[in-house]
Amino acid sequence: MTHPLWIYDTTLRDGAQREGLSLSLDDKLRIARQLDSLGIPFIEGGWPGANPKDVQFFWKLQEQPLVNSEVVAFCSTRRPNSNAAEDDNLKAILSAGTHWITLFGKSWDLHVIEGLQTTLTENLAMIADTIKFFRSQGRRVIYDAEHWFDGYKNNPNYALQTLITAAQAGAEWLVFCDTNGGTLPHEVTKIVRDAIQATKDLETPFPLQFGIHSHNDSGTAIGNAIAAVLEGVKMVQGTINGYGERCGNANLCTLIPNFQLKLDYNCIQDEQIKRLTEVSRFVSEVANLAPDDHAPFVGLSAFSHKGGIHVSAVQKNPLTYEHIPPEIIGNQRRIVVSDQAGLSNVLAKARTFGIDLDRNNPASRKILQQLKNLENQGYQFEAAEASFDLLMREALGTRKTFFTLKGFQVHCDKFSDEVCHALATVKVTVNAEDILEAAEGNGPVSALDAALRKALVNFYPMIAEFQLRDYKVRIIDGGSGTSAKTRVLVESSNGQQRWTTVGVSTNIIDASYQAVVEGLEYGLLLKQQETPVSVVAVI
Amino acid sequence: MTHPLWIYDTTLRDGAQREGLSLSLDDKLRIARQLDSLGIPFIEGGWPGANPKDVQFFWKLQEQPLVNSEVVAFCSTRRPNSNAAEDDNLKAILSAGTHWITLFGKSWDLHVIEGLQTTLTENLAMIADTIKFFRSQGRRVIYDAEHWFDGYKNNPNYALQTLITAAQAGAEWLVFCDTNGGTLPHEVTKIVRDAIQATKDLETPFPLQFGIHSHNDSGTAIGNAIAAVLEGVKMVQGTINGYGERCGNANLCTLIPNFQLKLDYNCIQDEQIKRLTEVSRFVSEVANLAPDDHAPFVGLSAFSHKGGIHVSAVQKNPLTYEHIPPEIIGNQRRIVVSDQAGLSNVLAKARTFGIDLDRNNPASRKILQQLKNLENQGYQFEAAEASFDLLMREALGTRKTFFTLKGFQVHCDKFSDEVCHALATVKVTVNAEDILEAAEGNGPVSALDAALRKALVNFYPMIAEFQLRDYKVRIIDGGSGTSAKTRVLVESSNGQQRWTTVGVSTNIIDASYQAVVEGLEYGLLLKQQETPVSVVAVI
Repeated sequence: MTHPLWIYDTTLRDGAQREGLSLSLDDKLRIARQLDSLGIPFIEGGWPGANPKDVQFFWKLQEQPLVNSEVVAFCSTRRPNSNAAEDDNLKAILSAGTHWITLFGKSWDLHVIEGLQTTLTENLAMIADTIKFFRSQGRRVIYDAEHWFDGYKNNPNYALQTLITAAQAGAEWLVFCDTNGGTLPHEVTKIVRDAIQATKDLETPFPLQFGIHSHNDSGTAIGNAIAAVLEGVKMVQGTINGYGERCGNANLCTLIPNFQLKLDYNCIQDEQIKRLTEVSRFVSEVANLAPDDHAPFVGLSAFSHKGGIHVSAVQKNPLTYEHIPPEIIGNQRRIVVSDQAGLSNVLAKARTFGIDLDRNNPASRKILQQLKNLENQGYQFEAAEASFDLLMREALGTRKTFFTLKGFQVHCDKFSDEVCHALATVKVTVNAEDILEAAEGNGPVSALDAALRKALVNFYPMIAEFQLRDYKVRIIDGGSGTSAKTRVLVESSNGQQRWTTVGVSTNIIDASYQAVVEGLEYGLLLKQQETPVSVVAVI
Repeated sequence: MTHPLWIYDTTLRDGAQREGLSLSLDDKLRIARQLDSLGIPFIEGGWPGANPKDVQFFWKLQEQPLVNSEVVAFCSTRRPNSNAAEDDNLKAILSAGTHWITLFGKSWDLHVIEGLQTTLTENLAMIADTIKFFRSQGRRVIYDAEHWFDGYKNNPNYALQTLITAAQAGAEWLVFCDTNGGTLPHEVTKIVRDAIQATKDLETPFPLQFGIHSHNDSGTAIGNAIAAVLEGVKMVQGTINGYGERCGNANLCTLIPNFQLKLDYNCIQDEQIKRLTEVSRFVSEVANLAPDDHAPFVGLSAFSHKGGIHVSAVQKNPLTYEHIPPEIIGNQRRIVVSDQAGLSNVLAKARTFGIDLDRNNPASRKILQQLKNLENQGYQFEAAEASFDLLMREALGTRKTFFTLKGFQVHCDKFSDEVCHALATVKVTVNAEDILEAAEGNGPVSALDAALRKALVNFYPMIAEFQLRDYKVRIIDGGSGTSAKTRVLVESSNGQQRWTTVGVSTNIIDASYQAVVEGLEYGLLLKQQETPVSVVAVI
């Protein structure tokens, strides 16, 4: 028998406070629709009136409403010494047209006096009036008790008074917010227990339900949410990927599987939880932030095995080094190849490429040796599995020659306010024929890519379908300034599959060239062979 | 009255299991000396015998021992059905010459039977024999109970037997390891309480002390460590920056301030905790991993304020939105400029540059407008404060012209197995004189930088002291492949100070050129003016 637990997403509001994160109107709508399809009950959309983008967001959702989720507008209490019904800010909230409004109010006397510069009594009136006003307009209210834990530690009686005021004015949910993120799990346990106890015999318009909103400044956002739920809290607020101000909010991609798979709560449907990894990556894509490869459950490395002992054990029985089966949340097990790799990792990896290497085959040692040499130079094959496959074929003597490179030239120039021009020339040999081609591009790498395709497309027409999907640059020894080594990862696609290749050089053009060339080579290989399952991903 | 708590660092062993992390011998030694200066009591150095690097690491430390820390060798129990005294692996451990050895053994019956493929009784003998052998050689033993929590859940009696065996054989510390990271804090509380209770009347050669080793697969590594310590555990194992296999180990940069500043434990000296942020960044530098800007306590964003309300409140009283004063752990408060920035953020930021802008000054609105335009194009000033200072001076009409750019050309070529050549030509005007200069480099950007310096050094000799210290490239809209926009950040230095500038273009050469040029300009500006405190950092 599972218990229901209401998930409340605030990626679009609190999440967007993250340094380096900026969402357009379209980004916000795309994320909202993903959360809707995931079945998240509440989605906080923003603060209508605070900026034009948030107003438009709610209007767009009125035109095309969500299917599974309630979209919620967020705002603060009315201004001190004013009338809620005449407050333009509150009118703007109503015009967002949501059933639910999340109202935040002050629990901490310090904030009332120093922040709002008003009296403790007026703050209570602000909470009560605003909730009653929203109720009178037929809206349902979630009350976010801002700085709840700090407020309670400093002045428990006053903090409780604010909560009771909100409940009696008609809030249906009371949410304990650890706004500064400084509270530890055992404190959450005690303070939540006290608060629920103190309000249990209260007469209120609605049966009281409680929520938790935690931040990660002490590294305990997840532990705090779990502690509160174990005390009887039924709503958990957080963000996808833990985005949020400073150190972030509680990460829903961690909370949902913890509650649903380990603590027997029911948050979303089982078919939906399978999409968690995909939604996490989608949101980081839209937010234009590199995904956290080491994130619990959904990170690329969350079920990666690198140490030799772990690799051999996990192949016998996954339970030995995995806390849950990765497939449940749409992630997968990975065997990592790296310079720490023992021979057994290389053999295991080869198997995932469909190559059955023998431990005593001299090629196995050769691959291991070449791997170590190249990684010393700064190559990394953990993410560039197509390049690793080519390396293995080279060592086994099965790498096919589609073309031979003779060389390239790249030229860029810019004068005063003109745009920067880029021109590339390449020379390749195919079937004993020398081909010289030139092309222009937006930048030196796109010019090089275009010239290579021009040179090869007559011999390999399928090259016309290949696309460069992603291009990543990492400076390896940044401390050496512009003389540092550069590692380039290129993701290519043929419309059905995608694969990644790597290049390294002190010259960024040369590194890009290596990765682009291997990307083309691998695409040609794929057309001719059975697809090695784990190198390429189906789009 | 504070209680002592022993910190045990395993960055060099468990941390190095992180995907994408590879430490050279020299890296390991540099990190060990930093941990030593931080006053970490135990540093796990590696598994001598597992690879030549770890053997050399211990030899180097025998030649030049650490001052404050005990370096510890790590290993597993003897092989099944063998004699500890004749085990070559164990002899290799002794030759590392450490006072302390951390021995890990199996607590979980599944691992004994499936992993080791031996009997439950033989596993107990392996634990006892190995500890007794190390004791007979005068070594002190820390016993890591691998998979303790999973083992206890599956077969509590057997798990307890392994622990009791280790204690009676002479281990001084018994460490509860959550190897798979699947345990939640309330389970840690219960299982640690049970184990301590079950062993309290045991007769053992040493008074028993307990430790905790947690992983972050459930997002609760920190919560689990705190839960264990609150039950009486006195040693906490973790890694700098939380590096470690899969989702990482408990982050010592989070644990130490939580225990020391919030829970009144004594981990390291107060002067040492001030260096925590510096050590965190040093280790990420040596590990060649981008620092986690959102890490609790030590992250660049951990005390950053972006939302307008937060910015104005935190300026009145930092307590309102900061859980601890950032200076205690060597971090600092930052006001973030971004496209979400209201006017008050821009004004606050200007003040940190020593520029007192008035809210009604038309230049303030102009700066805000230009900021939003440029950020729409992909510029980001959060990290490029020197470029932001130049932008403000431009809007205020106080930007000085040191030189005017006429244009540049860059040429790269490579033929067959030759190296890749890079040549740059620049044209600048200084004091109405046109200068044309050319230079070669390792890559196109270093060639451009060299040509610019050659053109300017006769007019501004101090340019000879400037250095490019760091060069970062970020593809902004990676999905567009090689036609994507590129953002380049360049960190420059004059030997005493360092500053960061930004450039954006679809052409990586052009973006680099913009950032390099602004870097030179800002260096010249610094020579002529009072240094705006928060733009440049003293080296």
